[in-house]
Amino acid sequence: MGMDYSRVRDWILREDCFDPLRLGKCESVMSLGNGYLGLRSATEERYLRETRGMFVAGTFNKFDENEVTELPNAADLTAMELTIDGEPFDLTVGTMEEYTRELNIRTGELVRRVVWTSPAGQRIRFASYRTVSLKNLHEIAQRVEITPISGDVTVGVRSGIDATVTNTGSQHFSEGDKRFYDKKAIQFVLRTTQSGIDFVHTTQHRLAVNDCVLEQDAQVYIERREIFAGYEAQVPQGACFTLEKYSSVYTTRDFDAAGRTTAELQEAGLAACRAMEAQGYAGILADSVAQWEAEVWGRTPICIEGNAQAGLDQFAVRFAQYHMRVMVPAQDNRMNIGAKGLSGEGYKGHCFWDTEIFLLPYYSFTAPEIARRLEEYRYLSLPGAHAKAAHNGYRGAMFPWESAWLDDGEVTPEYCDVDILTGKPVKVWSGILEQHITSDVAFGAWQYAAIAGDEDFMDRYGYELIFDTAIFWASRLEAGEDGCYHINDVVGPDEFREHVNDNAFTNYMAKWNMEKALEYYELLKNEKPELFAALSEKLSLAEAREAWRDGCAHIFLPQPTAENVLPQDDRYLSCRDIDLTKYKQQEHVGGITRDYNLEQINQIQVSKQADVLVLFFLLEDRFSPEVKAATWKYYEQRTIHDSSLSLSTHAVLACDMGEREMAYDLYQKASMIDLGPFMSSSNAGIHAASFGGTWQCVVYGFGGVRMLGGKLRIDPLLPAAWDRLSYTVLWKGQKLAVEVTDEKIVIENLTGDTPVSLTVAGEDCVLTGKAAFPLRAGRWKGEGK
Amino acid sequence: MGMDYSRVRDWILREDCFDPLRLGKCESVMSLGNGYLGLRSATEERYLRETRGMFVAGTFNKFDENEVTELPNAADLTAMELTIDGEPFDLTVGTMEEYTRELNIRTGELVRRVVWTSPAGQRIRFASYRTVSLKNLHEIAQRVEITPISGDVTVGVRSGIDATVTNTGSQHFSEGDKRFYDKKAIQFVLRTTQSGIDFVHTTQHRLAVNDCVLEQDAQVYIERREIFAGYEAQVPQGACFTLEKYSSVYTTRDFDAAGRTTAELQEAGLAACRAMEAQGYAGILADSVAQWEAEVWGRTPICIEGNAQAGLDQFAVRFAQYHMRVMVPAQDNRMNIGAKGLSGEGYKGHCFWDTEIFLLPYYSFTAPEIARRLEEYRYLSLPGAHAKAAHNGYRGAMFPWESAWLDDGEVTPEYCDVDILTGKPVKVWSGILEQHITSDVAFGAWQYAAIAGDEDFMDRYGYELIFDTAIFWASRLEAGEDGCYHINDVVGPDEFREHVNDNAFTNYMAKWNMEKALEYYELLKNEKPELFAALSEKLSLAEAREAWRDGCAHIFLPQPTAENVLPQDDRYLSCRDIDLTKYKQQEHVGGITRDYNLEQINQIQVSKQADVLVLFFLLEDRFSPEVKAATWKYYEQRTIHDSSLSLSTHAVLACDMGEREMAYDLYQKASMIDLGPFMSSSNAGIHAASFGGTWQCVVYGFGGVRMLGGKLRIDPLLPAAWDRLSYTVLWKGQKLAVEVTDEKIVIENLTGDTPVSLTVAGEDCVLTGKAAFPLRAGRWKGEGK
Repeated sequence: MGMDYSRVRDWILREDCFDPLRLGKCESVMSLGNGYLGLRSATEERYLRETRGMFVAGTFNKFDENEVTELPNAADLTAMELTIDGEPFDLTVGTMEEYTRELNIRTGELVRRVVWTSPAGQRIRFASYRTVSLKNLHEIAQRVEITPISGDVTVGVRSGIDATVTNTGSQHFSEGDKRFYDKKAIQFVLRTTQSGIDFVHTTQHRLAVNDCVLEQDAQVYIERREIFAGYEAQVPQGACFTLEKYSSVYTTRDFDAAGRTTAELQEAGLAACRAMEAQGYAGILADSVAQWEAEVWGRTPICIEGNAQAGLDQFAVRFAQYHMRVMVPAQDNRMNIGAKGLSGEGYKGHCFWDTEIFLLPYYSFTAPEIARRLEEYRYLSLPGAHAKAAHNGYRGAMFPWESAWLDDGEVTPEYCDVDILTGKPVKVWSGILEQHITSDVAFGAWQYAAIAGDEDFMDRYGYELIFDTAIFWASRLEAGEDGCYHINDVVGPDEFREHVNDNAFTNYMAKWNMEKALEYYELLKNEKPELFAALSEKLSLAEAREAWRDGCAHIFLPQPTAENVLPQDDRYLSCRDIDLTKYKQQEHVGGITRDYNLEQINQIQVSKQADVLVLFFLLEDRFSPEVKAATWKYYEQRTIHDSSLSLSTHAVLACDMGEREMAYDLYQKASMIDLGPFMSSSNAGIHAASFGGTWQCVVYGFGGVRMLGGKLRIDPLLPAAWDRLSYTVLWKGQKLAVEVTDEKIVIENLTGDTPVSLTVAGEDCVLTGKAAFPLRAGRWKGEGK
Repeated sequence: MGMDYSRVRDWILREDCFDPLRLGKCESVMSLGNGYLGLRSATEERYLRETRGMFVAGTFNKFDENEVTELPNAADLTAMELTIDGEPFDLTVGTMEEYTRELNIRTGELVRRVVWTSPAGQRIRFASYRTVSLKNLHEIAQRVEITPISGDVTVGVRSGIDATVTNTGSQHFSEGDKRFYDKKAIQFVLRTTQSGIDFVHTTQHRLAVNDCVLEQDAQVYIERREIFAGYEAQVPQGACFTLEKYSSVYTTRDFDAAGRTTAELQEAGLAACRAMEAQGYAGILADSVAQWEAEVWGRTPICIEGNAQAGLDQFAVRFAQYHMRVMVPAQDNRMNIGAKGLSGEGYKGHCFWDTEIFLLPYYSFTAPEIARRLEEYRYLSLPGAHAKAAHNGYRGAMFPWESAWLDDGEVTPEYCDVDILTGKPVKVWSGILEQHITSDVAFGAWQYAAIAGDEDFMDRYGYELIFDTAIFWASRLEAGEDGCYHINDVVGPDEFREHVNDNAFTNYMAKWNMEKALEYYELLKNEKPELFAALSEKLSLAEAREAWRDGCAHIFLPQPTAENVLPQDDRYLSCRDIDLTKYKQQEHVGGITRDYNLEQINQIQVSKQADVLVLFFLLEDRFSPEVKAATWKYYEQRTIHDSSLSLSTHAVLACDMGEREMAYDLYQKASMIDLGPFMSSSNAGIHAASFGGTWQCVVYGFGGVRMLGGKLRIDPLLPAAWDRLSYTVLWKGQKLAVEVTDEKIVIENLTGDTPVSLTVAGEDCVLTGKAAFPLRAGRWKGEGK
């Protein structure tokens, strides 16, 4: 769809062809943000099929009793109706030349350039620039340039704040104060209808011709849910008309709003816009660029060198880093990452297991202070998890499959899509049955603390989280007639299979969770008696310990078949096989659900996404290489990757198993989920977890990094297309720079001379300062290297 | 804006040029409906600036506590995404030839025809047909025809029910049941969020090529707030592809819904669509056309003959009749007519004094059963009027300026628009201060009953209404230091003037109301003792009578100046005069509010609309011809007709005073408010009252009809452009056909030989059967006729 990778070496993703029928993809994948707010990259001028969107992290609202809490689409600040001699600037009419839209991921700037001739024949050069500041999280800056080429023109502008936007028709805001200040600044306060969060939107404009500022009172328009300023400028041929728009967003839920009234936020919004005008677009951008360098690019860079393809690989992993900064509410532990980040209304801003299993490794290894906040969110949302457990008749903490407010508990919607046979909406079972989320959360908390070496986190939150989740699992086990404990009627990671018993991932992870609790029980009892006493009282640990021991001793764990294949659940291997070629090769996901309903799919040996394989990824030392290889092969053939969470796991495991070509092939597919042209589900927002997956492919997969049992392992090998890979990871407070070539591995501790214990290429060692290591022989299958 | 009057003699309003920047006007003025539902005439294919709208009478909902109750915009049933070889049918791209859109007001059918060449070069002939049945009020039928001209094409269709529509961003519906039946019928239940009304939308499609029906399962799509069927058809060059779409709408508030569950309405919706498919588009249309003939065109026709201009005059009055049928909830006395009918969200579906003063005369004289229901609505809404009176510290019935639910009381929004000086929204005072509505309601009830001779109405509702409103007025009067009673701090009909004292219209009408109450007090006491006793007890009439006598004796009535000018209020004549030429000649209304804020306008001798003149119109016998003439002249110069309620009053009074040329000029302007190209406020819906005004210009003005003091008067004279005017009025159950030429007046009682007393051309007479009368000499000023 017009994706152009010619400038990826300049950190630029380009669209070279404007397609008004397919606007959603670019709006999402080129979206801007700073973790506080996310802004879809809809154009200044409006189009029928656009989806404008601005989302402020954590500002959830519930439209009505039938809907679930979701992140509301805030008022639009970016649209501008521009006219040239009275005709709207509109690329679907007239003639378009030299069209480009570019996202520079290094600077976080969106730039659009076009030469356009109006239906009446006026030819102009148009450029627009936009950024969401990473320095001042409340600020959005825009700049538009119009240069008449064929003659003098009158440029008309109508721009302001539009609160008619909805989440696909559901309106989350009530109108509040709206007014002009001095016919210049525009302010509109809106309040979420159920959660009562005030949003303060403020904006003001600066117009100039050839840098000569036009001092002009705005024509003012206040309409229902809209407030606009109108301007008009005479622009001589060859002169440059510029319009800068400075906007700010504050809400009463903001990280920095504590104790501030809405009136104070209104003052702050006006002050911010004034300050932005004083600084100008270029200055605002420069500050933000410096922040990007400090926080991301300069801190934990990743470099890939190699052939032409490697250039795109390089871009892909930076693109992942870009979006992982844009989407993460680094400033606030009361919120988490939505499955679509802040780039669209898909999945309603809810956070899933995506955070722990797919995204957390990146933050743990590169920005542990952010990773900690994400897991603090889980701790803070224990009230919801307790409520969910109690509601379902269990004990301890049963985390919601989809999570929004800290005390919401489960917010998975009840229905989606349509059953092609019955014509009725399909019931979504994940909220009730996809229970593995609870051990995923425990695993994530443990993993973060191990990587960051954050014992303070464990003391305050981590131990309790692991105990509380283990208590849930012990209460969840069902005694079978076979004398074993089973976990029946669940959905595992593979969402094609509902109501299964003894899903391998679920059962093994539940056992891991209880084992970890037992381990920490002993540890705390012996080493942290005060904390132990406090938690013992709070959680009745003595009683819990008995249940964990019993549970660990009797939980049923699916065992490999004679062919070394680990059964995904109690039924999978006995289902029928069909020819999946059509779905394995599909360009768009979801093909199989157009041919079969879910009940039918349940009878086929087909997986939507990695399931058992995620288990191998998390608990690699529990399974023999033979089982892993045979199982990987078995499921890879039957997995159609209809989920964006699937490919990266397959790719990393392919790396682990030395399947070099396959690994690279899977990586390329994984890294192109949003970047490539195919995944139309990008329309509703980027695939947050897939960016974590891309980073994992590079650093976990080819880079060979892994934390296993609290220890760091580095065992890399590069795909054929790459000559050199370098990356930086933070390990227990030490910053390690790793450089991999086909010859060797060079690791340097950039933090200082603290000795770091790790395993490199299969050999245990203690690194002090900088050292080089040989690659492990036979790392790739069939290559003897 | 492309309005083409070339086919008005065929009852057809045509648009001959498609302008995607100005869609609202045609959507409104060509809207379809049947009084139960109203449908904006948005195109099948969607455009950025469209405003799709479907409104079901009386289904009010309140979005939140800050908004007032309004008529919600229901789910869209009419949109169809059509593709030609994969390219969307879209008139803003490709090439367009032979474009027309036509509303046939006789048949209530909307037809659009175009020859269009797609960007890829496929040339097709497209036609669409649409009607809202007047026979079966729940039904909407559509037909689309596509004939490929240049080659074989694949036609794609995506059509269903879209519930993402809002009232400018405010969403009034929660999603309910949505599903497919047999991959064919589509049903979507939505519930209003606050008032809890279930809407059942059902639709199904029939596709054919050259009348050979395509039996094809729909591709089914269920998304958030949307449910769609997808189809594809191969259409050979020259063949005709047809798509018929049959839709039905039922709600739990329907006139015929009493006792029916939502499930039963769902059954009814499906049955209706099945029946429609069995009948086909042509049959559905034919039934509806017959109903139009029976209810409107055949019952009370109006004919104008004359020069070329008279053809448009003829159309204009029929256009008014068309819209007055489309907008009126004839089936239900629990609802009334919105200021925009059912054609848009402007004025939120609320009913105003427009009903009694501008529309009721039409219904009283042509469809008294409808007029009665409109006034029954007022009686049924007495609880709201009592609440409003009590809330404001008065007694009796104080009717709301804007009215929705029967028990809502006042629903005027608090703010609108923007103050150009302060930048803040402008407070709307009408809801509190525009109190004349209460006597307007009393007047309307009295007028209806007098015209229809409906003593049953008076017994059940009318007397009580007049007593109860008079009680309000007596409590409203304020004793002044001058010994008179004043009505201070009001808004009269002229909404430019807020917080005025002793508005002439208000005071005279209040007195009329109390006088009428005193008159009926005596009448009932003497002639209907039982009713008198009942009402006496209910309303404490004895006490009320004293208050009325006192009120009538002491109410201050503004008196004419030495120049015979009746002051509009206590301040108007002392305000400054400015040059109003700019605003008198403006093409679009509202110019003055862009130059002055309301506070400033209040200091100028300028009127938005007829004020004192409406008083002359209602109570013509209270003022001398000299006062009327001088006052008319004075205010006509100072009235800029920024309200659609203004011109017709001026026109009728010009007729009364014999100002022939001026009358015709004003009539033409009045009749073109929606029909003409200028009034852009038509975008938000037609101007309901202006249609009553158009009819009044013709029948009251040139036709010379008036009910005065319970007596019928006919005193016509035609404008120069007309040779002959004939019309039919119902007078106390007798149907009188009136024919006026330059020579004579012929009146025939079509009902039979019952003698009818009336005044014709100034002479009292008793008509039996048919008779001819001479025109009154000197009827027109300066022409001696």
